[in-house]
Amino acid sequence: MYTTQTIQIRSHVGSYQVQSCISIDEALRIAYVPGKTWIISDALLSKLHVSSFNAILGTDTTERLLSITASEEAKSYEQLGPVFRWLLDHGFRRDCTLLAVGGGVIQDIASFVATVLLRGISWKFIPSTLLAQCDSCIGAKSSINIGPFKNQLGSFYPPTNILLVTDLLKSLNSDQIRSGFGEIIKFHLLDGQSSWEFIQDHIDWDDQELIRSLVLRSLAIKLPYIENDEFDRGVRNLLNYGHTFGHAFETATNFAIPHGIGVAIGMSAATYISEQRGLTSSGHFTEVNAVLKRVYTPFQNQLSSTNIDLVIKAMGTDKKNVAGSTFVILTRGPGKMEKIKVDLEAEIRPLLCKFFAFINM
Amino acid sequence: MYTTQTIQIRSHVGSYQVQSCISIDEALRIAYVPGKTWIISDALLSKLHVSSFNAILGTDTTERLLSITASEEAKSYEQLGPVFRWLLDHGFRRDCTLLAVGGGVIQDIASFVATVLLRGISWKFIPSTLLAQCDSCIGAKSSINIGPFKNQLGSFYPPTNILLVTDLLKSLNSDQIRSGFGEIIKFHLLDGQSSWEFIQDHIDWDDQELIRSLVLRSLAIKLPYIENDEFDRGVRNLLNYGHTFGHAFETATNFAIPHGIGVAIGMSAATYISEQRGLTSSGHFTEVNAVLKRVYTPFQNQLSSTNIDLVIKAMGTDKKNVAGSTFVILTRGPGKMEKIKVDLEAEIRPLLCKFFAFINM
Repeated sequence: MYTTQTIQIRSHVGSYQVQSCISIDEALRIAYVPGKTWIISDALLSKLHVSSFNAILGTDTTERLLSITASEEAKSYEQLGPVFRWLLDHGFRRDCTLLAVGGGVIQDIASFVATVLLRGISWKFIPSTLLAQCDSCIGAKSSINIGPFKNQLGSFYPPTNILLVTDLLKSLNSDQIRSGFGEIIKFHLLDGQSSWEFIQDHIDWDDQELIRSLVLRSLAIKLPYIENDEFDRGVRNLLNYGHTFGHAFETATNFAIPHGIGVAIGMSAATYISEQRGLTSSGHFTEVNAVLKRVYTPFQNQLSSTNIDLVIKAMGTDKKNVAGSTFVILTRGPGKMEKIKVDLEAEIRPLLCKFFAFINM
Repeated sequence: MYTTQTIQIRSHVGSYQVQSCISIDEALRIAYVPGKTWIISDALLSKLHVSSFNAILGTDTTERLLSITASEEAKSYEQLGPVFRWLLDHGFRRDCTLLAVGGGVIQDIASFVATVLLRGISWKFIPSTLLAQCDSCIGAKSSINIGPFKNQLGSFYPPTNILLVTDLLKSLNSDQIRSGFGEIIKFHLLDGQSSWEFIQDHIDWDDQELIRSLVLRSLAIKLPYIENDEFDRGVRNLLNYGHTFGHAFETATNFAIPHGIGVAIGMSAATYISEQRGLTSSGHFTEVNAVLKRVYTPFQNQLSSTNIDLVIKAMGTDKKNVAGSTFVILTRGPGKMEKIKVDLEAEIRPLLCKFFAFINM
């Protein structure tokens, strides 16, 4: 088990850090500087932790706290205008800090706003979902929708401080915990055989102390990828294992599948295709799928060959593509992922059809 | 006279360069890669150089060229949405390049779009105004309006290539040339006594070869400031000499005063205040104002003590301020500018009143 309490990450705008806190109260106390901090928070969390927010904000609640209902629509260029204006209306200046409390949507909003407000301001982050804690909170990516285009705007702009509160995970439902495990398993598969063997024995939705250690373990595995390739032009691409498929599954089901579940099914699909292409030893798919199935079981019926046209279309417009080419991350086994150019129609479509038939059999 | 044809600038996203071209046709030929380049251009230039654009774009004109009427409204968050969507609608991908042709407004739009489209794309710039050629084309700043807030969004995101075409300046009117000279004189004052003496003998709105050399000279003076302090946290602040006043004059007159003219009057005001505070030798204001007056004469009647409330208000909300403090750049003589904290009401208001009375006497 990992015992690290603080992680430092180097980036082009200076280093930043992750630290563990025992409660939301402690995290707010560390992050909030009276008169200099503005908060944007997931509306559900503002309600759930109203006494914590009141304790730290005092009479400033309405002036300094903006609650946002987290949704795909909320993280759009169109809906960010009012967020910028709220900050400027309330006197936000260059020496002030934005504090974000929430999951991936709130992170995307805060990171994008911080990138371009007053040519870049500092921000801090208290991630509230397992996905945000174990993965997205480091690496500095933001993704914003515009019009019909999903995740086509964004930046690489990290917070200065990330405050991890394991307690916040208690309010998540089991789908949200499963979704986080999708990414946790991905990191362990990426890391190699020994981490892969470790995670197979450590999947438990209910063990808070285990989850806390898996979060730190996942961040530690992610760290060298983002430090060595901050702008995602090389080795960091491998963190997208399961993602080109996963994003397409999310899109094709109109986001009925949560992100981490999509990644879990996506890794299963990538492993299936890898084995069918002879990249992995025979039986690797069965081994990997047995673990991932524990994560994605409640959602496996969402995908069938009826979705195949939408999936192929979504993969063709993935923003990681360059003109005319689609790349996916395939695998030769734990720790042996590779970026490979594929032909969507000739290679991917028939294998995905077989894969969908298999998982729904 | 400077003969340098190429300038290299180091930045956090890699180095970029300025090169001179003999014509818009040559610049377009260098910058445009068929199938990989999208152009946004000032609508006036698209019209004026329609045959040059047609020659390079062929049948792709409607697919690959977006003409924008340059205005304060055009460089707003609200009006940038359609620019992003036009690029995505027409298949812009990560390996493509945006080419901007125009002055400061087009530069602001292109730079902001490039900062956040697909998490950052590459762009090139053909600056068409004297202001953009001698100053803003290097240093990577963009400024975007949102709602009632002017220039409060932006980034530091340079183009990879800047192509200088002196020929383009021929279509500018005399106010636009004067405006550029405001910044050219600023650079020479900043650079010290010898550059200050040089520029006093080299002001001529009509000498194209002289202007070409002054553009390169100004960029060469600016270069170390932006390389040593890319994000404007220290020495680069001095490039704002005349700007806190100038921006306030622009705002107070509802932009009846062009930017470089505002800077010229702003430098004159800053020198007046510096001398009144005993920072400069007696007579320095008279010497500096005699030169700047040649630039700002057609606009000096725009400012009088009737504007003073608006000017003080605008200075108080300058985005460079931190909470509760206003800083301006004052001078102890050529090459001896200093950032000084001031009291707007007690110190600046009465001196500006005297200054306005003086220039309109």
